[in-house]
Amino acid sequence: MSEQQPTLEIFFDFSSPFSYLACTQVEAVCARTGAALTWKPMFLGGVFKAIEGPMVPIQTFPEAKRTHYMLDLHRWAEDHGVPFTFPSRFPMMTVAPLRVVTLLEGEEQSRFIHAVNAAYWSQDRNISDKGVLAELLSEQGLSPELLIQTADPEVKQRLQASTEEAVSRGVFGAPALFVNGDLMFWGQDRLDFVEKALKGWRPSCG
Amino acid sequence: MSEQQPTLEIFFDFSSPFSYLACTQVEAVCARTGAALTWKPMFLGGVFKAIEGPMVPIQTFPEAKRTHYMLDLHRWAEDHGVPFTFPSRFPMMTVAPLRVVTLLEGEEQSRFIHAVNAAYWSQDRNISDKGVLAELLSEQGLSPELLIQTADPEVKQRLQASTEEAVSRGVFGAPALFVNGDLMFWGQDRLDFVEKALKGWRPSCG
Repeated sequence: MSEQQPTLEIFFDFSSPFSYLACTQVEAVCARTGAALTWKPMFLGGVFKAIEGPMVPIQTFPEAKRTHYMLDLHRWAEDHGVPFTFPSRFPMMTVAPLRVVTLLEGEEQSRFIHAVNAAYWSQDRNISDKGVLAELLSEQGLSPELLIQTADPEVKQRLQASTEEAVSRGVFGAPALFVNGDLMFWGQDRLDFVEKALKGWRPSCG
Repeated sequence: MSEQQPTLEIFFDFSSPFSYLACTQVEAVCARTGAALTWKPMFLGGVFKAIEGPMVPIQTFPEAKRTHYMLDLHRWAEDHGVPFTFPSRFPMMTVAPLRVVTLLEGEEQSRFIHAVNAAYWSQDRNISDKGVLAELLSEQGLSPELLIQTADPEVKQRLQASTEEAVSRGVFGAPALFVNGDLMFWGQDRLDFVEKALKGWRPSCG
């Protein structure tokens, strides 16, 4: 048995409701399992483009499936005990807040991620708007000046690198969760598997 | 509090690996919750046609998603402790065994469903082949003569009626599970929700 601390990485995009739900839970999962958490922002549109995968927008679902999709999200939110209101603006451009995430670390990074998720997924705020993002930063005691940096080529490159890393590691959707670096799970509805894996479960098929 | 026995209906098609996984678990779910189980065979191709939904065949998935899809199925099978081998013949025409299901009831129906699922999802047998189906019936102590009846218009109509009932109740994929007649869940990965609902959980959003 290895004595090393287990690790959990979560690749997420603020544009995904299931990413939001997962982001509300991963810290508790890590607390229960003693795992170290790493937030991995990625631009989901870039992932889809790279793998030539269909976006399959909700709007194209058959009506029965769309109805269930919405109920399912609300059921998960209720089960997790977190607020959830499907935003009036969807899909959403999320590159700006994702770039800000790459400029932060530690507790500040976590707080900003939760603030952006809450703004979009429960308060129906426009998280592509620089004014809204400045407010969110201020509310978290962070400098709105960070927004200026998101135009830097080096900062743009950080998000691009994270997105490319996701694709190179087999990510095809959000959220994608990696346990101990190499065991990938897709979807917030696989968090039970993630938790089992952090406790030592290793599926025989990988 | 109602004193009525809770009910669980499962709409399934032998063609769906997630239906198979759910079929291996629902009796245990009912045993734990005191619920009465009703098997509802449906022809999934007919459902997709009725709702004009895309089939989105696995073959069209981006490679990374296809890889994960297969791993995910094996992980669930391992988690449930049931055998699973992705069949060499896929997709599979399942109308004949589904029609046989409509001719059976009670314990005999359950045994036949499990036998067909095992034949296809762990033994790689061709369940569209009448010879194989005759063997499966014999192995379960049932009459292979039942296969002759599957050509009767009245028997064809039973499966069609069950498929139409699924569509009219909002089913868009398999498996679809109904708790107490009106609360629908989609997917074997929602069995925890199903079990909670059978124990009295009623999501506030329906």
